[in-house]
Amino acid sequence: MAVSNIRYGVGVTKEVGMDLQNMGAKNVCLMTDMNLSQLPPVQVVMDSLVKNDVPFKVYDNVRVEPTDTSFMEAIEFAKKGAFDAYVAVGGGSTIDTCKAANLYASSPHSDFLDYVNAPIGKGKPVSVPLKPLIAVPTTSGTGSETTGVAIFDYECLKVKTGIASRAIKPTLGLVDPLHTLHMPPRVVANSGFDVLCHALESYTAIPYHMRSPCPSNPITRPAYQGSNPISDIWAVHALRIVAKYLKRAVRNPDDLEARSHMHLASAFAGIGFGNAGVHLCHGMSYPISGLVKKYKAKDYNVDHPLVPHGLSVVLTSPAVFTFTAQMFPERHLETAEILGADTRTARIQDAGPVLADTLRKFLFDLDVDDGLAAVGYSKADIPALVRGTLPQERVTKLAPRPQSEEDLSALFEASMKLY
Amino acid sequence: MAVSNIRYGVGVTKEVGMDLQNMGAKNVCLMTDMNLSQLPPVQVVMDSLVKNDVPFKVYDNVRVEPTDTSFMEAIEFAKKGAFDAYVAVGGGSTIDTCKAANLYASSPHSDFLDYVNAPIGKGKPVSVPLKPLIAVPTTSGTGSETTGVAIFDYECLKVKTGIASRAIKPTLGLVDPLHTLHMPPRVVANSGFDVLCHALESYTAIPYHMRSPCPSNPITRPAYQGSNPISDIWAVHALRIVAKYLKRAVRNPDDLEARSHMHLASAFAGIGFGNAGVHLCHGMSYPISGLVKKYKAKDYNVDHPLVPHGLSVVLTSPAVFTFTAQMFPERHLETAEILGADTRTARIQDAGPVLADTLRKFLFDLDVDDGLAAVGYSKADIPALVRGTLPQERVTKLAPRPQSEEDLSALFEASMKLY
Repeated sequence: MAVSNIRYGVGVTKEVGMDLQNMGAKNVCLMTDMNLSQLPPVQVVMDSLVKNDVPFKVYDNVRVEPTDTSFMEAIEFAKKGAFDAYVAVGGGSTIDTCKAANLYASSPHSDFLDYVNAPIGKGKPVSVPLKPLIAVPTTSGTGSETTGVAIFDYECLKVKTGIASRAIKPTLGLVDPLHTLHMPPRVVANSGFDVLCHALESYTAIPYHMRSPCPSNPITRPAYQGSNPISDIWAVHALRIVAKYLKRAVRNPDDLEARSHMHLASAFAGIGFGNAGVHLCHGMSYPISGLVKKYKAKDYNVDHPLVPHGLSVVLTSPAVFTFTAQMFPERHLETAEILGADTRTARIQDAGPVLADTLRKFLFDLDVDDGLAAVGYSKADIPALVRGTLPQERVTKLAPRPQSEEDLSALFEASMKLY
Repeated sequence: MAVSNIRYGVGVTKEVGMDLQNMGAKNVCLMTDMNLSQLPPVQVVMDSLVKNDVPFKVYDNVRVEPTDTSFMEAIEFAKKGAFDAYVAVGGGSTIDTCKAANLYASSPHSDFLDYVNAPIGKGKPVSVPLKPLIAVPTTSGTGSETTGVAIFDYECLKVKTGIASRAIKPTLGLVDPLHTLHMPPRVVANSGFDVLCHALESYTAIPYHMRSPCPSNPITRPAYQGSNPISDIWAVHALRIVAKYLKRAVRNPDDLEARSHMHLASAFAGIGFGNAGVHLCHGMSYPISGLVKKYKAKDYNVDHPLVPHGLSVVLTSPAVFTFTAQMFPERHLETAEILGADTRTARIQDAGPVLADTLRKFLFDLDVDDGLAAVGYSKADIPALVRGTLPQERVTKLAPRPQSEEDLSALFEASMKLY
């Protein structure tokens, strides 16, 4: 169980220059995306770097929902810059891109696929030392500031995959609620769904002592090790916050209390799933976003079709937890109760439907699109969605119940409409 | 918020050789105490080192409740050995001694008082790199495997003090429930009281945003930063485990389930207080154990009078929480409820007495000595006990309510008898 350094508080971002100075940084790479580059979070970071005499260069070409091409471009920038520290200001896309840039600039002779998860890449363990990376999240969803995971679209296969290694975990996450005030409602909602699924999936993941294979040498064990007594604490706590604050955070941009709690919940759920892992909602989400046709997400200022990550994850959740509840039904009922269900008279064998109904109600209240059909998929797409899920075994094998291709088809089909 | 790497599971200790080999260690210092050196935990570690071809030397002269003299002897050993990694197998005394040995061997030109907490020492920040240290706790109390604190008796002043720096936090804690099976009942009880007080004190400590001074540079902030949303989670969770499992763990040495949970609770509470801090029970405990006269603790195989740390901490707890409940009474009531009190009809202004009564009942059920009088103190000792508490401001100033010398006198007096 490795946990992360985070510093939480209104205004902590302006300390980043001191932190970098304390680390002795003399040539910092500041990564962000185009939209953010003109906004207060980046401005605060730049002011702090200037004030503390920390020299830096800006890379603001991060792609929202990054690809191998966009990763590679950032890696090139990092290699040329020979930086001694990194600051990533943005959502998961920016933090993940920065992790990849730091990794490959620190291991300049590696092929890109060397560290990418098997079976798509070679999944080599990272043994090179990386530079310090400070992550400043501006969305409340990925928890990327606490995890050793970097996700991207592998374009030639039209599938999401990633790099997963404790070595790429940020040195420090500055969790500053001030940055959440600029988020438009659907960004808050979708990133909150990511937190919701991180919590639900890591809490219902196969227990760590039932996972296989179980490598005898600790260094070869995966970062995602199955649910365990420590990740459980974070998952349950994050879920309680989502239940209490997500609706408020979506509806009122000025609700600093609700948005602060969601910002912490994102980090908490990250610490949980960063050790336990996620399973089917995430595994199935990668083709859902990777195969996107024309869907344009509201409140996202991007020039390409996009099913935001949190939305792609949550749309299958009622079907997924109906399917998995056979195993560990108590945990499924417990999460339903946290999300507001009255489970006093529920039968244990109904844990799946009870949680699914609770999720549908929760999602309906939050105006979620009505299933995969609403984001552009039809029955004819199911074989491709299943094919895109099969290579995600790094996460799907953490589901408490194994799945056949027929099971996956049925889960996609059941997710076409939610209400 | 810095958190710790721990690995939990029955039998994880036997992986220590692989971990050290993965770190490239070629000259390891194995620290333990005389009693343990012949027992299974040390044997398992040595077997693992041999099996993985990791060369090591043993230092088994750790003193239970260490002193500056015993620290210095261990430091000498470490300096001469020029080790590249450390393994500490034992309770808090051993892990703390090993932290000090690692620190001063890594900073060979420092005076001993350089890193000791002010006002007794100079409290200098640690800027030298230390060697990796793997901690294998064999008691379930200090949480030392997760903290950056090392406590000792400073003999010439007859007072406990310590070294506190994130830099001395172990690289990895191997939390292996198998080691808890050898603990005699009073050792389980007393170490459990330490967990109880870590949880209660860190949960009721002054909130992090009300602490002063508040250094503007993050590097100069203390490890003990006051209660905060993250340490709260650990404190409450540890307290629930203590409420559920401590009595079972004390009464039945074979209750692996109860002892496993207490072993984890110790680490959880350590992560909590290691960030939030402790306050009056701990601050007042240092003279209680430092000024010990003839008290010989049952189940402790040592050749000197001893008030075990957990006992010295818990004896003042009813008085302390009666005193502090004026501030944050809701938190005091909440902990009383977790410890079994029916608080549905309790008035908020009675939070202190309610928690104190709950603690008295809990301690009585666990056969705790009847107050400071039962461990050899009388009213005449109170001025010396107060004098020994005053230098502990590093922790006492974290109490939610400031204390005068008269307040401290009254707290010691109220703790002479518990029942």
